[in-house]
Amino acid sequence: MQHKTSLKWREGMSFETVINGHTIVLDADEKVGGNDAGPRPKPLILSALSGCTAMDVMSILNKMKVELSDLRIDVEANQTDEHPKYYDKVNLVYTFVGKNLPEDKLKRAVELSQNNYCGVSKMVRSFAEVTYEIKIQEQ
Amino acid sequence: MQHKTSLKWREGMSFETVINGHTIVLDADEKVGGNDAGPRPKPLILSALSGCTAMDVMSILNKMKVELSDLRIDVEANQTDEHPKYYDKVNLVYTFVGKNLPEDKLKRAVELSQNNYCGVSKMVRSFAEVTYEIKIQEQ
Repeated sequence: MQHKTSLKWREGMSFETVINGHTIVLDADEKVGGNDAGPRPKPLILSALSGCTAMDVMSILNKMKVELSDLRIDVEANQTDEHPKYYDKVNLVYTFVGKNLPEDKLKRAVELSQNNYCGVSKMVRSFAEVTYEIKIQEQ
Repeated sequence: MQHKTSLKWREGMSFETVINGHTIVLDADEKVGGNDAGPRPKPLILSALSGCTAMDVMSILNKMKVELSDLRIDVEANQTDEHPKYYDKVNLVYTFVGKNLPEDKLKRAVELSQNNYCGVSKMVRSFAEVTYEIKIQEQ
């Protein structure tokens, strides 16, 4: 068991979680008795997915000597209606910003991450249909 | 698509993600070119799991009129060796702290969360074997 996180109650529906030594507050929505002192737990999965593939892509593009001015990843997920509510569809939009960016290399980096490297993507694909789009912003 | 998160590059391997309006920094380990400015992306899944079930359990125990002094949840996961590296085993340890806590109600609250309510648990169970333990600390 190599990965560990801990969670501790603060008050109401609010909890503190420690991940790799960094503390994050999680809280419920005001509609269900929380105070919105931090994010809801479930969408952390979407940020885990975008963070995982972003680090892969950045690392692969570094090796390919492709220089970016910026990288953004927006993730949207569809949550099912019945309890337990889970994500059945997830879409990622990668926006690459830079000068004369080589589209083929950007696509290749995303494919390598999605198919070979990103463990979070592998996990998410076991419960959701994962799709992605690539956008390029010339700077 | 009801749930959304965004992610934006900061520098190096570090990214800012916005979840329900709250910003969290993610960063890689120093060993792989990061600066540890925030947690790694993958273990966010473990915190999502503990946060989700913690909010369920707290809400169920409130309805059962069970008062806790504290609740902690420690999560451990085994990561596979081959790329893409994912979690194949996850264990949660629930530690309930309080006076004369009714063990049957604590167990029932955890079972209801794990089996019926916690969407993150449902998702994690589709790629990992999920086990849990319940500890009671008399105060």
